[in-house]
Amino acid sequence: MSSHDNPQQRDERHRQRMQRKKAVIDASIAKADAERGVLLVLTGNGKGKSSSAFGMAVRALGHGMQVGVAQFIKGRSDTGEEGFLRRQSGLVWHVLGEGFTWETQNRERDIETAQRGWAIVREMLRDASVGLVILDELTYPLKYGWLDLDTVLADLRARPAMQHVVITGRGAPETLIEAADTVTELRDVKHAFRAGVKAQTGVDL
Amino acid sequence: MSSHDNPQQRDERHRQRMQRKKAVIDASIAKADAERGVLLVLTGNGKGKSSSAFGMAVRALGHGMQVGVAQFIKGRSDTGEEGFLRRQSGLVWHVLGEGFTWETQNRERDIETAQRGWAIVREMLRDASVGLVILDELTYPLKYGWLDLDTVLADLRARPAMQHVVITGRGAPETLIEAADTVTELRDVKHAFRAGVKAQTGVDL
Repeated sequence: MSSHDNPQQRDERHRQRMQRKKAVIDASIAKADAERGVLLVLTGNGKGKSSSAFGMAVRALGHGMQVGVAQFIKGRSDTGEEGFLRRQSGLVWHVLGEGFTWETQNRERDIETAQRGWAIVREMLRDASVGLVILDELTYPLKYGWLDLDTVLADLRARPAMQHVVITGRGAPETLIEAADTVTELRDVKHAFRAGVKAQTGVDL
Repeated sequence: MSSHDNPQQRDERHRQRMQRKKAVIDASIAKADAERGVLLVLTGNGKGKSSSAFGMAVRALGHGMQVGVAQFIKGRSDTGEEGFLRRQSGLVWHVLGEGFTWETQNRERDIETAQRGWAIVREMLRDASVGLVILDELTYPLKYGWLDLDTVLADLRARPAMQHVVITGRGAPETLIEAADTVTELRDVKHAFRAGVKAQTGVDL
């Protein structure tokens, strides 16, 4: 920037710079023109994976889409999102798990529960009227081997062309990441829990 | 694992291992016993920051809490989450920005808009009846210098003790991260947009 410029010149330069930036961005938006259902994976140890999926549920409901939610790990029954979203028309909420494996302490039962759950998910993945399917914490039954990854991937690939799927959970397997269109890793930079703050209503529960 | 064990022994070992794991987890949950409003920051280039914040809005609404949303960058007016959440009682939605600076191309107006917006946010940050405040894409007016970071931090510190605040946006400043209780960095592993898929209704809009 020249030291001789006046505010008008500076503003004009800002305007021109932003005009060029807008042209670049508009061009890249114009280039992405495909329309199809996308597979999103939200993984990593950071807070916000399930919240993000439920935010997308709200987004879809706002457009009048049908939404299906499947929860594979079910730690407690009084979360705010479940209470709120179950009341919404256009959304179906399935609880397909009974808690983490250290809660049930029974591997055979965990496997049966997960497989029964996947049969319900498969119905949603064959129903083109469901615009968005959320598979919350699906990575855990995959990680523990309660569900077969190849079967899960095959069912995801066979879904209706315009159906979106969001999968959440820590430690997403590499082949799932390869199959996905959009993957975000939520990195835990810091967490109030480690500073001694318990799970708080409205943000954690 | 011994090759001589039978399924019963294996199941019993699984049960014992999970019992020990449960004890460790239960103890760490019991240790985190503080109750207070938390400041959450969702930053990074990955998809899902605003969705995550809106998922927490749903969580809070599910518990009957009052929620205030302030959107600092306003690219378009037909997003699903806005349409849906504006219809909910208990939630107030403020649009405080007019788009990215390359859209407005007028720096003076951007600054005025942001400062007028912050005055509205400050009212929410003084109102203990608002349990959750979402400051969506606040990092941009901070980054562009439209808002003074010290003023923003002082107003956040002075908020009611039990009020939660969620801030989203790329490039959160270091002092904001220091002030926060929980910080998640959303890392962009891959994005359908780069594979030529346009923004899709229900997941992106």
